[in-house]
Amino acid sequence: VRLVIEDDAAAVARTTAAVLLGTMLTDRRTNLSVTAGATPAPTYALLTPLLAARPEVFADVHYYTFDEAPLPGRDRGLTLSALDEAYFGPAAVAPGNVHALTPGNVDEIRADLRAHGGLDLMLLGLGADTHFCANLPGVTRFDADIYTYEVPADQPWSHLLTGLDPAPTEVVTMGAPTVLRARRVVLVVTGAAKAGALAEVLTGEIRPERPGTILRTHPDLLVVADREAAARLPASVRAA
Amino acid sequence: VRLVIEDDAAAVARTTAAVLLGTMLTDRRTNLSVTAGATPAPTYALLTPLLAARPEVFADVHYYTFDEAPLPGRDRGLTLSALDEAYFGPAAVAPGNVHALTPGNVDEIRADLRAHGGLDLMLLGLGADTHFCANLPGVTRFDADIYTYEVPADQPWSHLLTGLDPAPTEVVTMGAPTVLRARRVVLVVTGAAKAGALAEVLTGEIRPERPGTILRTHPDLLVVADREAAARLPASVRAA
Amino acid sequence: VRLVIEDDAAAVARTTAAVLLGTMLTDRRTNLSVTAGATPAPTYALLTPLLAARPEVFADVHYYTFDEAPLPGRDRGLTLSALDEAYFGPAAVAPGNVHALTPGNVDEIRADLRAHGGLDLMLLGLGADTHFCANLPGVTRFDADIYTYEVPADQPWSHLLTGLDPAPTEVVTMGAPTVLRARRVVLVVTGAAKAGALAEVLTGEIRPERPGTILRTHPDLLVVADREAAARLPASVRAA
Amino acid sequence: VRLVIEDDAAAVARTTAAVLLGTMLTDRRTNLSVTAGATPAPTYALLTPLLAARPEVFADVHYYTFDEAPLPGRDRGLTLSALDEAYFGPAAVAPGNVHALTPGNVDEIRADLRAHGGLDLMLLGLGADTHFCANLPGVTRFDADIYTYEVPADQPWSHLLTGLDPAPTEVVTMGAPTVLRARRVVLVVTGAAKAGALAEVLTGEIRPERPGTILRTHPDLLVVADREAAARLPASVRAA
Repeated sequence: VRLVIEDDAAAVARTTAAVLLGTMLTDRRTNLSVTAGATPAPTYALLTPLLAARPEVFADVHYYTFDEAPLPGRDRGLTLSALDEAYFGPAAVAPGNVHALTPGNVDEIRADLRAHGGLDLMLLGLGADTHFCANLPGVTRFDADIYTYEVPADQPWSHLLTGLDPAPTEVVTMGAPTVLRARRVVLVVTGAAKAGALAEVLTGEIRPERPGTILRTHPDLLVVADREAAARLPASVRAA
Repeated sequence: VRLVIEDDAAAVARTTAAVLLGTMLTDRRTNLSVTAGATPAPTYALLTPLLAARPEVFADVHYYTFDEAPLPGRDRGLTLSALDEAYFGPAAVAPGNVHALTPGNVDEIRADLRAHGGLDLMLLGLGADTHFCANLPGVTRFDADIYTYEVPADQPWSHLLTGLDPAPTEVVTMGAPTVLRARRVVLVVTGAAKAGALAEVLTGEIRPERPGTILRTHPDLLVVADREAAARLPASVRAA
Repeated sequence: VRLVIEDDAAAVARTTAAVLLGTMLTDRRTNLSVTAGATPAPTYALLTPLLAARPEVFADVHYYTFDEAPLPGRDRGLTLSALDEAYFGPAAVAPGNVHALTPGNVDEIRADLRAHGGLDLMLLGLGADTHFCANLPGVTRFDADIYTYEVPADQPWSHLLTGLDPAPTEVVTMGAPTVLRARRVVLVVTGAAKAGALAEVLTGEIRPERPGTILRTHPDLLVVADREAAARLPASVRAA
Repeated sequence: VRLVIEDDAAAVARTTAAVLLGTMLTDRRTNLSVTAGATPAPTYALLTPLLAARPEVFADVHYYTFDEAPLPGRDRGLTLSALDEAYFGPAAVAPGNVHALTPGNVDEIRADLRAHGGLDLMLLGLGADTHFCANLPGVTRFDADIYTYEVPADQPWSHLLTGLDPAPTEVVTMGAPTVLRARRVVLVVTGAAKAGALAEVLTGEIRPERPGTILRTHPDLLVVADREAAARLPASVRAA
């Protein structure tokens, strides 16, 4: 694990945007997965205007959404809607460069990824319960590359989905094997509310009840955190 | 996971030797870990004469032993003794190309590996209890890159060490994080006695009590098995 | 350059087949280019039965033909015909895994290669005039990734094409930039008639009149030669 | 070749610094070569404070100087002096992480690079005569991995060296084979004075009299140029 602790969320965004840009600027196709949610918003604010301004430079950058919760009666699910707004739209990504995972196309996405060389980089956020992608406590399987599950009624996080209107009933997500196969994984974590989760990911027992703990077995995991999120890391981790 | 099921142990040896040779014959230094034990003996019988006959071709191949059980009063531990006899001697590996792990040099080996580019390939065997390297049931930690432990008195496998004369009292082993960082992992499994273990590794729950189950999270795991060892694999795994 | 000098053509075949097999047996799609001609025939005699016997293992191995001379009135050109007979047929390669270059599909093949991750390995032969693929003296351009040319009337090698019935009038070939982008290049050279060419490739001035001289700028070039082909190599090259 | 044309030198610096940072922030040792000279100064102005502020994050970044002109009577040559001032000093690089090439240690540096995994990235500038590193017109050999030469009296560029006090008499430089082996090459070019050289590098005949022309055979060349430096590039190159 390579750990970078930045002073604040703005510095986290600068570093994370640099890593993404460096990966994109190779002379070959690159396949990325990027996370929705609030944490990466400052990163995308830096990055997406650069992408939109140079479409010819980034024409070989492809995106694979790593999870989805379809919304009954809508064309696009929760994840694709959020990423369209936060990233694909502002970055002016060509529709053909977005490979959107749904519960119905798992086999196609699996084959697509394999045919096109696999994921070069995944940018992940971290839940306070250590979830990543839609690998949530209570439903996570470490051994399924991509899997679906029915939204449970009784998990602490259930209301985040069941409370929506329309409410998704099914979720699909890339699992640990797919994430661990990405050439690089970048975990971006900011804010005091994530400090416990980050400490657990980097030092806790590896078990599916705390999904993010599996991430530190990745051979090239970069953690970009601000001081608040890093506040509970032991000295041994900071110095490594 | 890429699974190759060969007709017999001789075919397993041919395929495994080819994979090792192909990795060594690059125009750069390669760092390997190879397993002692009975399973790879036919592979080494094919491979080591080729290496001994062309020392100039293989001068950039380095070896890192992945575990050790020191023998009180002896210069070399169990693993180094076995590999000297089975591989390093017959292959005429230069002493400077063997980086032998001991409980006393964990920090040095960790730094050595990092400085020299990491492991390119690990050739592993599999225990009937799914152990790999010296990650044995009851002592395995998934989160330690290289770790040591006292030989326990009460494990089913304890007598294999405590019954020796001299008997080792301490063991050091590369753990899951180090194995998962190797660019390629090749797991060679032969014989009916390993059929249950192999099925567990490829389909069972991932947990430290069954150490080998973590191996299938590696992004480039090659399993070379004979028909006997593959006998209990479900059709879904065979077809993947 | 990694140079392996084997005793004879049979040993060259064993080593070359091992390198190919090692590359194919990864847990991802691999893209290969293999050469037709007499030199690799012993390699293919070893390799193709293994491939044909395990179609499920090698289902992710794709082939890109690196040159072609269309034969007027025939469906398949010189190269595809030769490879069908020498390799794709005996190896039972699925038709969808063969990506055949023609003068009419250069843009498609370029895009196909880029989309699918590029070439992992090219297996090349060497002409006595140091040509590789169809990069022949008098027509070779070092700066064109894939290019076509009319068969000239006045080159020493022209009669090899103009003397055929039907005779090709146009040739397409991957050029140096594409070959140099392959992750590995394996050059297999046997027989006394190639000794001068091999010496030139490894020690001569790099210039398009001697096309093969550009090959030694590749970062991972493996040369597998027999003693006869290596007979004119200076000691400095043998020891490197 | 991946070509990025930025509006001005400041944007060139931002992009180049991002690419360097992205390469450094992996969880393994990285080996870099960076160029002295005026062109990268704005890049280093962005980058070096970040490095100096986080020495523990960048402890595994090593630097190999790619050329040197020793100054009689002085400890450090032209290149090391310039890089100490422009980069290693401001970035607070530990002395043990700087591997300085001199005419007297070519074999050691060659072995050092091979042992430590080779160069991950080279950041190069471009001369108006298309020189890179100290591969200058009239002395460049495409086939020497690292080579030395006496400073000639009669080249257009000779006075740049012979006019110094003290004046270097000998030069050592990494040559094309070493540069082409680096995993990534980043060529940073700014200003109208370089426009002709850049066009030549990307479209001209590949020959040692114009040293930089060999660079476009690299499999992952990134060119970061400002509008002025890109002014003479044909539309075909801009669109590629």
